[in-house]
Amino acid sequence: MRPQILIIGCGFGGLEAARALRRADVDITLVDKTNHHLFQPLLYQVATAGLSAPSIAAPIRHLFRRQRNVTTLLAEIVAIEPQARTVTLKDGAQLHWDHLIVAAGATHSYFGRDDWAPFAPGLKTLEDAFEIRRRVLMAFEAAEREDDPARRAALLQFVVVGGGPTGVELAGTFAEIARHTLPGEFRRIDPRQARVLLVEGGPRVLQSMPEGLSERAREQLAALGVEVKVGARVTGIDAEGLDITTATGPERLLSRCVVWAAGVAASKLGRALAEATGCTLDRAGRVVVEPDLSLKGHAGIQVIGDLAAAQSHAPGREPRPVPGVSPGAKQMGRCAAANILRRLRGEATQAFRYRDYGNLATIGRNSAVVDLGTPAGALRFSGYPAWLFWLFAHVWFLIGFRNRFVVLLDWAWAYWTYDRSARVVAGAGLDGLSGASPARDGRADGCRPAG
Amino acid sequence: MRPQILIIGCGFGGLEAARALRRADVDITLVDKTNHHLFQPLLYQVATAGLSAPSIAAPIRHLFRRQRNVTTLLAEIVAIEPQARTVTLKDGAQLHWDHLIVAAGATHSYFGRDDWAPFAPGLKTLEDAFEIRRRVLMAFEAAEREDDPARRAALLQFVVVGGGPTGVELAGTFAEIARHTLPGEFRRIDPRQARVLLVEGGPRVLQSMPEGLSERAREQLAALGVEVKVGARVTGIDAEGLDITTATGPERLLSRCVVWAAGVAASKLGRALAEATGCTLDRAGRVVVEPDLSLKGHAGIQVIGDLAAAQSHAPGREPRPVPGVSPGAKQMGRCAAANILRRLRGEATQAFRYRDYGNLATIGRNSAVVDLGTPAGALRFSGYPAWLFWLFAHVWFLIGFRNRFVVLLDWAWAYWTYDRSARVVAGAGLDGLSGASPARDGRADGCRPAG
Repeated sequence: MRPQILIIGCGFGGLEAARALRRADVDITLVDKTNHHLFQPLLYQVATAGLSAPSIAAPIRHLFRRQRNVTTLLAEIVAIEPQARTVTLKDGAQLHWDHLIVAAGATHSYFGRDDWAPFAPGLKTLEDAFEIRRRVLMAFEAAEREDDPARRAALLQFVVVGGGPTGVELAGTFAEIARHTLPGEFRRIDPRQARVLLVEGGPRVLQSMPEGLSERAREQLAALGVEVKVGARVTGIDAEGLDITTATGPERLLSRCVVWAAGVAASKLGRALAEATGCTLDRAGRVVVEPDLSLKGHAGIQVIGDLAAAQSHAPGREPRPVPGVSPGAKQMGRCAAANILRRLRGEATQAFRYRDYGNLATIGRNSAVVDLGTPAGALRFSGYPAWLFWLFAHVWFLIGFRNRFVVLLDWAWAYWTYDRSARVVAGAGLDGLSGASPARDGRADGCRPAG
Repeated sequence: MRPQILIIGCGFGGLEAARALRRADVDITLVDKTNHHLFQPLLYQVATAGLSAPSIAAPIRHLFRRQRNVTTLLAEIVAIEPQARTVTLKDGAQLHWDHLIVAAGATHSYFGRDDWAPFAPGLKTLEDAFEIRRRVLMAFEAAEREDDPARRAALLQFVVVGGGPTGVELAGTFAEIARHTLPGEFRRIDPRQARVLLVEGGPRVLQSMPEGLSERAREQLAALGVEVKVGARVTGIDAEGLDITTATGPERLLSRCVVWAAGVAASKLGRALAEATGCTLDRAGRVVVEPDLSLKGHAGIQVIGDLAAAQSHAPGREPRPVPGVSPGAKQMGRCAAANILRRLRGEATQAFRYRDYGNLATIGRNSAVVDLGTPAGALRFSGYPAWLFWLFAHVWFLIGFRNRFVVLLDWAWAYWTYDRSARVVAGAGLDGLSGASPARDGRADGCRPAG
């Protein structure tokens, strides 16, 4: 019988690992709890109604239809049994493995305050994106119907928590929606009056980038109308807004649309692995792995991607942590697959080495920041050329020719028309957003057009 | 102050009425409980993962952004007060009107058996389409994991109730998915083994079309592999399947994916109108209207579209009922708007006359039936030319240039590749579909690839 490889999760890490084994004489079972692979760098575009979900996601079993050694299963794994070499699914069934790659990823963390979650959704899955999109669009709808000026202003205030790439992209795009897409479509409110605030606890936005680029990003955000508050920690979030503390003291921000783009929390499978194997977890719950991505004492189990706290080992240099970005997950996936093949051939495994090709973040139309490592040295640029680079890089790495075409089409359309292609919200959507506007006594014209 | 026109609902009827008033010296408030206008003839394509939601829906306030006399509101109307000339919204606010057009539409009916609804979703809104899509795709996923052959067969049996255009289109497309899109993507099941059944209580499918075309449609369905049962009434639906009665007696069909495409039930606003004005409702709850689409004794209120039980009045002919199709709703919308303008000018209103341009229904790739009334006589054809006609007619009437382009693109892609563009299901999806597969004692290889 051929070796049984089980891969948990079909994000960037799991996908690359399965692909890298396409010519191997093995049987691969690829398990994910959704039916699709998500191109997460563009998830914020679904959240801001710029792209539809199918543009950035591909059905897993469609991707692997021609790779005969892969069986795709839609299932959720709840336990891992290293001694028996099995995993247990949510419905009780079990899968056997000879080699296991755990690529279950990570999600956002509320730093222990999970009670904030209902008021400030994060952005990790398509469902998250739909919910954020609903809240943003419905906030404008509710404001159009709101008579009270103070409540209306609170509805038109959008807060993004977290100054990393996701937060910067979201805040920039909210500002674009308010300033460019929606004006003219409302009769009682002026969407350009909306305020977009980006709250970051550290001293600058995009802390993973060089300081010069952080500064460029902040300028571009300001040009779009985003108010950036750095050195601001969130101390509370509720249905009406959030409380922050800055150097100058506490502050209350009213908002009915708060989006959480801060903090990392590894998948719960990390804890399951720690209990089953005794491996260590870092503060975010990520699994500490050996240089070859395997678990100490369990050479048959490898952990990759956002779930792993991995180091990059380059000869002659100190090991360095691997950042939680898509290229990191993809390279780990390929390394894990290669190490399985080495073990099957009786060879020694190799340590993982991360090749950092650079960092990108976009802020809005015509503007982005790019930080590339080239053999000649660092290449950093921002503004319009960076934006073009960002655009083509993301389209290049999208999965699927059709998706690339549609995304380019949507973006070209949006660029020329300022239109956003995916504003449709299924179902009624004002829940949780509009304050009640009771009928005024004797005055039955609550919603007459202004002027 | 200008006359206040209130239009309830932005389906085909409400949309056309609002547009027809674009140059009038009036103020229009257009209210819908969603933020989008839905191109319903193509909703089944979202339900069968062929198109994404934004392709067939357009944000209402975006559509009307340049029509300055329209104010769009997202709200749900719960009561109508004809004496005071107001309506009441769900949150208690009230809107005043001088002229009211009620275009709230209709939905499907379970003929009094609303307890069947959880087991057999209908297809009226985007949420319905997403749910049907989820059930169809997840049925194949669950079958891939199912060990028991009888349960697997039940998962691969799809039943559509209702042989009108919607039912025929759904059934044909389910068969296409099973025979052309999914084969090759599964390792344990063969999607071509799926059975698709179309259950119709009357003597033939597409009863609104001439008998010859009904027969062509039935042949094309059979060629696609759809089993048609006519003269079959549904007597019960539950989580495991449904019970039907035919001439030969009762029959039980096992299925975990039953779709309801039968029966019409008017919006609840019909009943609200009847209580408030004393107007009559027909058996489906539709409001019986005067020849000029107004209510008896309430000239300021008109009811159009699927909510109205209207008659077409052509000179020298008997009045004939207006079918519940999109062109009917659109023509009624234009007529209602024109009658408002006549009343404002002090002129008499005109009776509504429906111009029947014909009927189309598609069955699957390369096949459709078309029944057109031309000045030279009836023109009927089927098969490939009908399918091309159907395709271009629907694209022509789609709202929005971009949507037309994307839909053509999606269809061209699907045609050449058999791919379906919108298979992504957000969130885990096996709820309600898979029977539990408990771990087998001693055998931990529940999901080893076959062979």
